[in-house]
Amino acid sequence: MAMTKLNLNSTKTHLHSSQFSFLPRTLPKHLHCAFASPHRTTQHASISCSVAPNQVQVPAVQTQDPKTKPECYGVFCLTYDLKAEEETRSWKKMINVAVSGAAGMISNHLLFKLASGEVFGPDQPIALKLLGSERSIQALEGVAMELEDSLFPLLREVSIGIDPYEVFQDAEWALLIGAKPRGPGMERAALLDINGQIFAEQGKALNAVASRNVKVIVVGNPCNTNALICLKNAPNIPARNFHALTRLDENRAKCQLALKAGVFYDKVSNVTIWGNHSTTQVPDFLNARIDGLPAKDAIKDHKWLEEEFTETVQKRGGALIQKWGRSSAASTAVSIVDAIRSLVTPTPEGDWFCTGVYTNGNPYGIAEDIVFSMPCRSKGDGDYELVKDVIFDDYLRQRIAKTEAELLAEKKCVAHLTGEGIAVCDLPVDTMLPGEM
Amino acid sequence: MAMTKLNLNSTKTHLHSSQFSFLPRTLPKHLHCAFASPHRTTQHASISCSVAPNQVQVPAVQTQDPKTKPECYGVFCLTYDLKAEEETRSWKKMINVAVSGAAGMISNHLLFKLASGEVFGPDQPIALKLLGSERSIQALEGVAMELEDSLFPLLREVSIGIDPYEVFQDAEWALLIGAKPRGPGMERAALLDINGQIFAEQGKALNAVASRNVKVIVVGNPCNTNALICLKNAPNIPARNFHALTRLDENRAKCQLALKAGVFYDKVSNVTIWGNHSTTQVPDFLNARIDGLPAKDAIKDHKWLEEEFTETVQKRGGALIQKWGRSSAASTAVSIVDAIRSLVTPTPEGDWFCTGVYTNGNPYGIAEDIVFSMPCRSKGDGDYELVKDVIFDDYLRQRIAKTEAELLAEKKCVAHLTGEGIAVCDLPVDTMLPGEM
Repeated sequence: MAMTKLNLNSTKTHLHSSQFSFLPRTLPKHLHCAFASPHRTTQHASISCSVAPNQVQVPAVQTQDPKTKPECYGVFCLTYDLKAEEETRSWKKMINVAVSGAAGMISNHLLFKLASGEVFGPDQPIALKLLGSERSIQALEGVAMELEDSLFPLLREVSIGIDPYEVFQDAEWALLIGAKPRGPGMERAALLDINGQIFAEQGKALNAVASRNVKVIVVGNPCNTNALICLKNAPNIPARNFHALTRLDENRAKCQLALKAGVFYDKVSNVTIWGNHSTTQVPDFLNARIDGLPAKDAIKDHKWLEEEFTETVQKRGGALIQKWGRSSAASTAVSIVDAIRSLVTPTPEGDWFCTGVYTNGNPYGIAEDIVFSMPCRSKGDGDYELVKDVIFDDYLRQRIAKTEAELLAEKKCVAHLTGEGIAVCDLPVDTMLPGEM
Repeated sequence: MAMTKLNLNSTKTHLHSSQFSFLPRTLPKHLHCAFASPHRTTQHASISCSVAPNQVQVPAVQTQDPKTKPECYGVFCLTYDLKAEEETRSWKKMINVAVSGAAGMISNHLLFKLASGEVFGPDQPIALKLLGSERSIQALEGVAMELEDSLFPLLREVSIGIDPYEVFQDAEWALLIGAKPRGPGMERAALLDINGQIFAEQGKALNAVASRNVKVIVVGNPCNTNALICLKNAPNIPARNFHALTRLDENRAKCQLALKAGVFYDKVSNVTIWGNHSTTQVPDFLNARIDGLPAKDAIKDHKWLEEEFTETVQKRGGALIQKWGRSSAASTAVSIVDAIRSLVTPTPEGDWFCTGVYTNGNPYGIAEDIVFSMPCRSKGDGDYELVKDVIFDDYLRQRIAKTEAELLAEKKCVAHLTGEGIAVCDLPVDTMLPGEM
């Protein structure tokens, strides 16, 4: 079937190249990595890179390759009158949401939630900017077709493309889901490097063309260090705007505490995942509350809390794959929705949520200059503040120190991608979460 | 990982066998079909049946096989206090929603929409009753795990099982998605027969144990005739409560009209798909409106309307599979949401929606006693009325006659499943929609 593409209103498209793409991009010094392909947009297919340093030229910005332009899709190229909606239905000004890995399974759930109004509310029109790869561009068209056929009233624009410098144009949210999966026999260091390059590139693109206050949620693993790389490559965007997704871990921890306490999950609050989204993560039962009381009062089996709880949370992804034969795309998408909603709605009194954020003046004594999951509250303005009234004991401190050490080691592995010199990678133990291999 | 299953409140479970399961089940006379397996719940795996008639005993109701009981899952077995929610948050009384084919891709989208409150509203707590097969029961557990991890406040119960007589207990909505896909070289008549048996069985189960006013939406194909079989096997449930899903076709038709007219899809209204969910379906452009005007005024290219529009709508599923490599699970799930919402919210003034319903006193002169997609309006009470002010011309009449003839022929093919004697099957042309093979 031939898609009719009408460009009745091409002045309305997303390519305001003149505005941003010649902004001086502050590039990290001393990039040490060789791209096999000189072309930015094909790096997915042909990165040949190691942690051994290798001086390389950062590819120049290419602005006029028509192949890489994001294209509005089908019915989303049509004119419409949002002004009327703003007046008659009190709709807000449209927001631009960019999603990478947009042809993947997590996105296949997430995009429809974004478009339905479930995330940003029933008065928030939305433009979706979908980033795929050359390999997935056909599938992306399929996704756009399904979005067309869903007739979501709030979804006003869908554009697809493979160049982050085009797709991220004016993005107010960037949900970075796409990442290379780990191949058989691939070392974790190699994965950090390969995915790190993707996020370095996307950080640069965000820095060049996204909204100056874009909120970025990194989902692609290893997400903490990917988020660090991304923010280091986007010096003109506040570092506090970058998040690594630990919300699925938080949700799973709440569910397991509810099960153990024999209460419904809506009674569990104040759960934090500290640190890295890996097996060193620390689901915090010391500060968690069940029906308003400390979890340790509601769950008398402290041996379970100390020895089984964390492992149960972490093995959830692997257990799910065993049952279901697929990874947890649906609940991951739900947790991304939760993560966004936690930033755009006020946090309930007395509660908090956790998210991996840049450590810069944290009150917990955690090392600065990494991305660490910590307890946060929000006024609902897209920003957050760290929670002050948390308690620590030796057990919690020790475990936090371990995940902190891991993140510091990961950071050294990607120094060539953060502009901090020569990478030294020493990650003896593999801490990828089961189900995310 | 061992799932802790707590049955703190087993009196709250769903097995009120004493209430319904010994109700006299009015069975269709003259069932002509041989089950290779005598056990009701294993029929998925081993149906050996043809349109040639063969007397068979309807399997007796088995009430106490523990293997086939639906089990509450994990955290959903816990106690909770909805009373408090009803008082403090004005929540409604919980509804029971049964879903068949619950481990499939469409359900994987739909269940999360149901659980999030997107379908029935933010004040409607929900119990999900998931029907799978022996083959899919593990996957169903995976689905239940992901629902647990999503912490949906409105989702209070999830039970899974493989016996419709147990899973459909007290169901107020039954979304029948599961059906056998068509195997290579399988005749359409054979598909009608195999899936017809599934829907005959599920009709009997609904008749025996579901709410007396259950609303049933049949999605599994061929959905119109499956819905007819289902309602014929459920004589104690009003026939008007059964629907065959043609909403995805309606949505696709609206999108294509919008594209052709160069307006956004929210301007297109009053679109009907008449008849069968097959290639004989009739997307009605005569009554359709664009920005309040007849579509034929907004789209001057009448040749396109008459010759290309219908085919474009119908080929959408196939085109999508080509692009995306998968069938349209996400947009199908959206269309099921739309179909339910159209019944539980008042239809906007002047507009209508279409759904496949039982013809019994229709004002259009369409043959009675089949399931035919027609234009409807609802007061939002779960019921509907047929729209009277539609117009016809010869072209529309002719096409409606063709899809009507097909449904009458399909009905004859499944006479052994509707209690109407010996099946005679004469379906020379294959009219399955592309993408649904």
